[in-house]
Amino acid sequence: MDQVDLNCDLGESFGHYVIGNDEQVLPLISSANVACGFHAGDFSEMHRTVSRAKKNGVAIGAHPGLPDLEGFGRREMKVTPSEVYDMIVYQVGALQAVAKAQNVSVNHVKPHGALYHMASDQEEYAKAVVQAVADVNPDLLLFGMDGTFLTAAGEKAGLHVIYEAYADRTYQPDGSLTPRSLPNALITNTDQALKQVMQMLQEGTVTTPVGEKTKVRAETICVHGDGTEALAFVATIRKELQRCGIKIGAWHESFGR
Amino acid sequence: MDQVDLNCDLGESFGHYVIGNDEQVLPLISSANVACGFHAGDFSEMHRTVSRAKKNGVAIGAHPGLPDLEGFGRREMKVTPSEVYDMIVYQVGALQAVAKAQNVSVNHVKPHGALYHMASDQEEYAKAVVQAVADVNPDLLLFGMDGTFLTAAGEKAGLHVIYEAYADRTYQPDGSLTPRSLPNALITNTDQALKQVMQMLQEGTVTTPVGEKTKVRAETICVHGDGTEALAFVATIRKELQRCGIKIGAWHESFGR
Amino acid sequence: MDQVDLNCDLGESFGHYVIGNDEQVLPLISSANVACGFHAGDFSEMHRTVSRAKKNGVAIGAHPGLPDLEGFGRREMKVTPSEVYDMIVYQVGALQAVAKAQNVSVNHVKPHGALYHMASDQEEYAKAVVQAVADVNPDLLLFGMDGTFLTAAGEKAGLHVIYEAYADRTYQPDGSLTPRSLPNALITNTDQALKQVMQMLQEGTVTTPVGEKTKVRAETICVHGDGTEALAFVATIRKELQRCGIKIGAWHESFGR
Amino acid sequence: MDQVDLNCDLGESFGHYVIGNDEQVLPLISSANVACGFHAGDFSEMHRTVSRAKKNGVAIGAHPGLPDLEGFGRREMKVTPSEVYDMIVYQVGALQAVAKAQNVSVNHVKPHGALYHMASDQEEYAKAVVQAVADVNPDLLLFGMDGTFLTAAGEKAGLHVIYEAYADRTYQPDGSLTPRSLPNALITNTDQALKQVMQMLQEGTVTTPVGEKTKVRAETICVHGDGTEALAFVATIRKELQRCGIKIGAWHESFGR
Repeated sequence: MDQVDLNCDLGESFGHYVIGNDEQVLPLISSANVACGFHAGDFSEMHRTVSRAKKNGVAIGAHPGLPDLEGFGRREMKVTPSEVYDMIVYQVGALQAVAKAQNVSVNHVKPHGALYHMASDQEEYAKAVVQAVADVNPDLLLFGMDGTFLTAAGEKAGLHVIYEAYADRTYQPDGSLTPRSLPNALITNTDQALKQVMQMLQEGTVTTPVGEKTKVRAETICVHGDGTEALAFVATIRKELQRCGIKIGAWHESFGR
Repeated sequence: MDQVDLNCDLGESFGHYVIGNDEQVLPLISSANVACGFHAGDFSEMHRTVSRAKKNGVAIGAHPGLPDLEGFGRREMKVTPSEVYDMIVYQVGALQAVAKAQNVSVNHVKPHGALYHMASDQEEYAKAVVQAVADVNPDLLLFGMDGTFLTAAGEKAGLHVIYEAYADRTYQPDGSLTPRSLPNALITNTDQALKQVMQMLQEGTVTTPVGEKTKVRAETICVHGDGTEALAFVATIRKELQRCGIKIGAWHESFGR
Repeated sequence: MDQVDLNCDLGESFGHYVIGNDEQVLPLISSANVACGFHAGDFSEMHRTVSRAKKNGVAIGAHPGLPDLEGFGRREMKVTPSEVYDMIVYQVGALQAVAKAQNVSVNHVKPHGALYHMASDQEEYAKAVVQAVADVNPDLLLFGMDGTFLTAAGEKAGLHVIYEAYADRTYQPDGSLTPRSLPNALITNTDQALKQVMQMLQEGTVTTPVGEKTKVRAETICVHGDGTEALAFVATIRKELQRCGIKIGAWHESFGR
Repeated sequence: MDQVDLNCDLGESFGHYVIGNDEQVLPLISSANVACGFHAGDFSEMHRTVSRAKKNGVAIGAHPGLPDLEGFGRREMKVTPSEVYDMIVYQVGALQAVAKAQNVSVNHVKPHGALYHMASDQEEYAKAVVQAVADVNPDLLLFGMDGTFLTAAGEKAGLHVIYEAYADRTYQPDGSLTPRSLPNALITNTDQALKQVMQMLQEGTVTTPVGEKTKVRAETICVHGDGTEALAFVATIRKELQRCGIKIGAWHESFGR
């Protein structure tokens, strides 16, 4: 692969509450997952975030979440698939208008937190997310992990699926992430994380903690902007990608893959 | 005038809370002001409301309000004009997507409750609302009362302004509504209300409580669907309009006036 | 048993949204489960509800729920036990002050909806609820079903546990309710419901759909006030209890059982 | 005066959103104004804040605000006096239970932000706040500024009123604060702020920007914990007070003045 996207969650501040280092991370990434006011963010923060992303030439994506600000969208809720459909449509639409008002457009959708996991692991939620995206705008890219119900449903519906991979998480032989509850779930060593990313891009594989290689699709890498270390890591990965001649940029519907 | 629009606030239910007689009033009106989840309504209620309006051939409008569910958007809040701009963009966008997902489109915008009054009476809020509508989609119709900052700002910005009038409220010599705090503010007699509507449409005037005539622009009449009496009144007004050969229908951007 | 309590969920209106027939059901019951502003109700509705209960001589209970107004507290959320502890403390305290301001006091606590089920079925949530009640006021009665983690934890902690039973739900041989997903879960026949209540009170048993008798503890019967039929049923049950010489009244901490 | 209280707003974090340096400022102050979940804070944050205040021997106060998390309680809302009454009762009660669960009690009430200003400037809101405090617990101290409707209503109702003064704000000849919109509203020089505090305590006066002296009652000084500078200022003021033999401590209902 000679191109990869770097995506990061942005616009998570709410009212007087500030989270993240959006200004610092924006020059380092190519796609911004913009919180849409349910799990984080608010209408004014969305305005500011789209404006900043635009200034940095970063593609804008909707990052819809569960309606749970207190839990930051990380607590599973027993919502129905039709509620999931409706909350995705609503949030993507809100961001589309914020973008339209600034003459840019929404490029991708990536569900947030518990909603991402629910749509990855349960087919009915996956279908609801996919249907919502398809109904609002079938040209929107859908971000998700390979081997999940989410990306399977997206492919089946003819959406442009962009496969997401992680620099700082280890993988199981079946291509899924090692659960955080297990040791070795996180990669804290920068060199190791960097090596994993390069192997993903150059070989399309990842090496599990026990040393096996398994296939992984890595078209967009999820990075974090919270904290000095996280920012330094993104800068490092960026430099290494450039050194290896891999272009960093958002995918677009019109691009071939 | 040989055509008039009848508009009504709809989709105000929230979660398990039900308000209004949407099913009953829809066959009687031509434009639905759909609550967008801030002062009332929620993402699933919006879905249902758009679906019902579509089935009844009723035009869909955004009815954005202040972020105050508890106060039903009727309590003024000291928000900034830029917050008003952002909350209008967000809510209109959310409804646009809900409509798009059902292959219909949003036809008009009418601010709700305290936001409507704030934008009518204060120029900075009027400009914020108008700018939001213009930036999201300049073809959207803007509903407002003649003689207010809202419609003045809308005209100045080149928006398609549709002038709203009331069947059940009396007017002052300057064309403004008699404040609810004064006696004679409300018209409770059906015949009198009907007479006022017909005079508005046929003469472009209204008679104030003290007997003077003043000009009024009435392109869309605001009606209510809450309660048996309200529904009966809408049915009566509808019948009388038809008897007089006045067409009931939503205005559209492409229509001349 | 020569005394039984009739409890009903009240104060579920929110802002301009009205639910329930609180005025009608209050004269028929002995304990009001007052919504505390999380899943339903608001600070002003709580004021009104306590005032009405007081006027009717009905005992006041806290009915704390999950922080999910949109879902009416009926959608499970993956909250932590310490969050459950904190949300119970907060809501009970809020109601205590509302009651204190009217010179009455809170008599019992009954978790609402999904929280009730979570505390019934999962020990860690049961312990969290019980600890919260014990820490706020150990004299508060705890309502729950026999055979659940909730009442077991309550007894173990030395709380005054009041066992709740249902008139309109059938029971399984193990004393649990027939899940709503199964046929025969609901009793829609008034006579059958009445018979079930009398058998509970007089024999301490209930007959399952397949005809077996199983033990059930029925110190408080959960009734509903939503709708004409529901109100009529409460009136009927009340009359029958009185005819049989069974006193209807709230339990109090100082009462023996 | 040989004793003064130092109060600071605390517990303003919400869910995953962190605001303030509560751990750092607690050792420096004597009274904590704890956010109660409406304008800031949540049920778990209240638990943590009470626990931290208790550990530091700091008195706990309720800091009730308008139901507007997005605006941090700083935007005026046209609520009714009875809504103000109800929201104060609710929030104070919630904190009382959180405190009771940790065997401490709430010592004072200080309305937050817009609610503080509304109750200072408008008599009907002042009365509503005072009545709420009196009805929940007449032994609670009420914090407010001299010359306001809030403290006048508190005195009239027989509440224990504690007069609050500001180190970093200048005063007008009538004893009110210089509005923030005017130049000279803020004191940014530490020495000047310190001098103002000492003059308040030793003379009961303050010198206005134009050089006049006016009376001011300063029983509790409002300080801030947000930022390194703010913390340094509190440490400095604390040291100077101790050097001058002025005891720093919370007032209590049983204390004489």
